[in-house]
Amino acid sequence: MGRPMNQDETPPVRFERVALIGIGLIGSSLAHVIRRDGIAPHISVCARTHKTLDTARALGIADSTTTDPRACVEGADLVVLCTPIGTYAAITRAIAPALQRGAIVTDVGSAKVCTLTDVGDNLPEGVAFVPGHPIAGTEYSGPESGFAELFQGRYCLLTPPPGTDPVAVERIAALWRAAGMIVEMMPAAHHDRVLAITSHLPHLIAYTIVGTATDLAEEARSEVIKFSAGGFRDFTRIASSDPVMWRDIFLNNREAVLEMLARFNEDLMALQRAIRWGEGDVLEDKFARTRAIRRGIVEAKQA
Amino acid sequence: MGRPMNQDETPPVRFERVALIGIGLIGSSLAHVIRRDGIAPHISVCARTHKTLDTARALGIADSTTTDPRACVEGADLVVLCTPIGTYAAITRAIAPALQRGAIVTDVGSAKVCTLTDVGDNLPEGVAFVPGHPIAGTEYSGPESGFAELFQGRYCLLTPPPGTDPVAVERIAALWRAAGMIVEMMPAAHHDRVLAITSHLPHLIAYTIVGTATDLAEEARSEVIKFSAGGFRDFTRIASSDPVMWRDIFLNNREAVLEMLARFNEDLMALQRAIRWGEGDVLEDKFARTRAIRRGIVEAKQA
Repeated sequence: MGRPMNQDETPPVRFERVALIGIGLIGSSLAHVIRRDGIAPHISVCARTHKTLDTARALGIADSTTTDPRACVEGADLVVLCTPIGTYAAITRAIAPALQRGAIVTDVGSAKVCTLTDVGDNLPEGVAFVPGHPIAGTEYSGPESGFAELFQGRYCLLTPPPGTDPVAVERIAALWRAAGMIVEMMPAAHHDRVLAITSHLPHLIAYTIVGTATDLAEEARSEVIKFSAGGFRDFTRIASSDPVMWRDIFLNNREAVLEMLARFNEDLMALQRAIRWGEGDVLEDKFARTRAIRRGIVEAKQA
Repeated sequence: MGRPMNQDETPPVRFERVALIGIGLIGSSLAHVIRRDGIAPHISVCARTHKTLDTARALGIADSTTTDPRACVEGADLVVLCTPIGTYAAITRAIAPALQRGAIVTDVGSAKVCTLTDVGDNLPEGVAFVPGHPIAGTEYSGPESGFAELFQGRYCLLTPPPGTDPVAVERIAALWRAAGMIVEMMPAAHHDRVLAITSHLPHLIAYTIVGTATDLAEEARSEVIKFSAGGFRDFTRIASSDPVMWRDIFLNNREAVLEMLARFNEDLMALQRAIRWGEGDVLEDKFARTRAIRRGIVEAKQA
């Protein structure tokens, strides 16, 4: 799995026509995987602008292109939503009449409870919805930033609601395994809580501190840039992720993010107090215990 | 500067005997530079344990070793403090009687105002103190983690108080330039404010969020490790830095850290409010403006 296939090998999963709605980092990376492994003979791509569609064609990852989601999904047996989560409801309502019976709809969004209503509830009978989240990314956006190896060795979470066609679930799982991912199943609500702490809160904090630095006086700002090697630059990388995508994640995973944020604030206040009162033993103790988590990540080969 | 020297080249700066008090990541990396460029024929190393000293010898970066700081500096014309900041005052008082006239004392700590009293005020007449801060590092600690290229292309800030011997300042500047660093001068108080936002606050926040995750229920914790690719893992890397070193930084740059932390908290509250009230335009606007700082860092070759 996850390695380039020989031409005479049978791909582990096959579709006739894949419709990618949105062709940013994740959509284009998936298109590269589909091409590499011969998973589908036709990739139909939808984007908002002709410029993006031209880029996708030039990259060789689109067989047909359109700005109309409904036209994009006609004849498709797999539809992958790769746009910001906030667009899901409108797109699903637009494509629903054109979806063929037996088609599978999946997505790659970072919040999953919201997809059950925004996507699942708007689909016609006979179309399966398998919510998915490949946990992979870089700070770059757009079709030219995609590459097939993006997913290699990372986790993909599928959150199909009870009653989802198991064959459809297995085909989506096989698709992401072909991309090199480790696929796991979990309830959507659980996914949203775990991602709130592992992804959403880190992004919110990174955006915040980079914003705090941006507000410093002009001279200090140029120094922030020059002397960023002491920790700050990692935050700026995270905080250069796509603003619209992240806006939609926070709006659509509000409860879990606010809960994790409250826990974080309590812990930060405790450290702030320890600094103010010069409680060195409290600081050292707190700083020492976080190494175990890092060790776990290195051992799980997710570093 | 910063490239390996040919044997017949004259090093850009030369000392007779360099005493390194502490041989962790920075101390050992500097020792590798001194060896590579032939900057000093003798490196005397002091550490608390014989195990660390044995490692330094095995790595070929120590000509003599001792657990006694005073013995370490005897006959040295350059003394570099590479221990956690909290040890500076005691070490300086211990070595002061053994320092030879004309020797230069410098350090590599991340807070600089505190060094003026802890080190500067405890030195005898005829010994110059040049406080320094090479802004470079990894999340690894100990002598075996050091390498000569650590400093390449990064900034080194020197914060000599008014009246410091300019010849001593220039020799320390030449030492770090030999290591490949860009050397700049600034007042200690200004350094401490800039580093509070670019380094100290990022570390405090990373330690906090990794701690928040550590406190989650056992099952959630293993998931945090598995699904860390969504942003969290960068924080765990930062939060695996040396606990004692960071404890001392926060205790010794308290005012600046607390001020930057207050600004950060205000900004985080504003984003929290926007999430709670579903103010998408506020979120998108805040997330979009941080990209400029990232661009600046990439352009300044500090990414």
